[in-house]
Amino acid sequence: MATVAGWVEAVREADARSLARVLSVVENRGPQAEELLRALFPAGGGATTIGVTGAPGAGKSTLVDQLAREYRRRQERVGIVAVDPTSPFSHGAILGDRVRMQALFGDPGIFIRSMATRGSLGGLSAATADACAVLDAAGFRRVMIETVGVGQGEIDIVQLADVVLVVLVPGMGDDVQTLKAGILEIADIFVLNKADRGADRLQQELRAMLGLARRADGWRPAIVQTVATEARGIAELCAAIADFESFQAAEDRRAARRREQWRRRLERLLRDRWYEAALAPHLPAAALDEAADAVAARRSDPYGAAEALIAMARRAAERG
Amino acid sequence: MATVAGWVEAVREADARSLARVLSVVENRGPQAEELLRALFPAGGGATTIGVTGAPGAGKSTLVDQLAREYRRRQERVGIVAVDPTSPFSHGAILGDRVRMQALFGDPGIFIRSMATRGSLGGLSAATADACAVLDAAGFRRVMIETVGVGQGEIDIVQLADVVLVVLVPGMGDDVQTLKAGILEIADIFVLNKADRGADRLQQELRAMLGLARRADGWRPAIVQTVATEARGIAELCAAIADFESFQAAEDRRAARRREQWRRRLERLLRDRWYEAALAPHLPAAALDEAADAVAARRSDPYGAAEALIAMARRAAERG
Repeated sequence: MATVAGWVEAVREADARSLARVLSVVENRGPQAEELLRALFPAGGGATTIGVTGAPGAGKSTLVDQLAREYRRRQERVGIVAVDPTSPFSHGAILGDRVRMQALFGDPGIFIRSMATRGSLGGLSAATADACAVLDAAGFRRVMIETVGVGQGEIDIVQLADVVLVVLVPGMGDDVQTLKAGILEIADIFVLNKADRGADRLQQELRAMLGLARRADGWRPAIVQTVATEARGIAELCAAIADFESFQAAEDRRAARRREQWRRRLERLLRDRWYEAALAPHLPAAALDEAADAVAARRSDPYGAAEALIAMARRAAERG
Repeated sequence: MATVAGWVEAVREADARSLARVLSVVENRGPQAEELLRALFPAGGGATTIGVTGAPGAGKSTLVDQLAREYRRRQERVGIVAVDPTSPFSHGAILGDRVRMQALFGDPGIFIRSMATRGSLGGLSAATADACAVLDAAGFRRVMIETVGVGQGEIDIVQLADVVLVVLVPGMGDDVQTLKAGILEIADIFVLNKADRGADRLQQELRAMLGLARRADGWRPAIVQTVATEARGIAELCAAIADFESFQAAEDRRAARRREQWRRRLERLLRDRWYEAALAPHLPAAALDEAADAVAARRSDPYGAAEALIAMARRAAERG
């Protein structure tokens, strides 16, 4: 099984234990991770990726669970990638009694992967994207990404998801006035969760605000009220997602969005690879540290230091 | 005045109107921005940069205002860079009647710059860093950065600030359990604002949690209760900041932190420059788009596509 071919086979069969092992290989970025992802890549693209974001405490996990149950009722296979907000201080996941239980107790149509941040935020977004790619290749038709609003989470989800749900809660500091910049733009659908607290005012304000602007693609984000703990509004949310999917299906919009997403991800990959391949090998190990020391001591400025490092690497490359 | 030398002079004099103009030049990344920043760089390094982060609604603005007033009472000059949470939908700043009024009404010892996100998050962190560098060079001894927890905000503040304050509010979804990963690690000082709601339990939980872990540098983050709207706890907060500064002064810790910050910023700058200088010019304009199309259509995988683009650029460079 410890070969790439074996892992690819395991992903195709999509049994939970093998999937978990494959995801660990990918997540740990072992030497075979890239080979594996490349081998799996052609099998992907069939999943609808649903990103779910919102502040801690908004009830995202419960909502994702309910949505997963609803899709299971409709016989759709569901993968969940939960970017876990656990602090390294509290250790381990707070996944609680989630759908995970369902997954553990033998429903092969659902699979949950919890990605711990482990205090390190860099690399998490790449790991999340890779986990989604594996579940996609494994044939899950719904891949949900549940992310905390930590670090680049909200932005990365836009680079990854076909559908973005932004979860708000009335009276939780989520006044429309203080809505974070960027959040309004990324939502394809707003979910007003814990709506039993009364979400009508929030809904009105949101609608008024959305009325002021028009998205480039012409979509007017839907607003759905839910009480996830009581499974209320979940069917309506599924319908809103289906609406958006129909909208995206027309005029090739989903494909256009994916092309744009890939363009950005590819450029980022290209920057990193180019640095690792063509600059870093030509810099002495201590060069960056020494330059940082000089900048910190104000002996050189950062722009000059960067230029000097590039010139140094170029000379080294020319010499051989 | 429209010369770099003139702008440098204006920064040295630090009058509000000239500063505002210089900051616009820097913020708009005009052709002279880099030259200006390089010319100003040697004059910087004297400011203590205080980063303030926390969820929307935590009262960060009021807290920053009160802290600024306190420092003014102590005759310290204060610059504030407020990364503004305004949504592009609501237009304009929500800076309200802040210390800004004080600045407007002629106290040259205080200067506020509001950085709008304008929906675009990329570039904001660089612009924030540049604005801080200008205020630092202008001789403000306290430069406060007030950031919303949007996008990379929290992480970038760690790359920038000598002291990081994390503002929490009891009962606002800021249970210690759901504290975002990364937040605990970055706080040098926790501010429990709106403490008149009763912050003792949050303080206890936080202390218990902090007791479980030890920072690499040995600092045990202070916890200060405030009611910023009534200026309560502000002197205590200043004292906590001073304590941390004493801690940092010993064993060269602040300098070490700055070296590490510069190391990361420099590496990022280097990646971007190297890409712009040595790869992008050798790629046909449409190459990245075409590669993204191929990846989106699953005709090639992203890793293979990146390799092919690098090979293409290398051949073009060799041809001259």
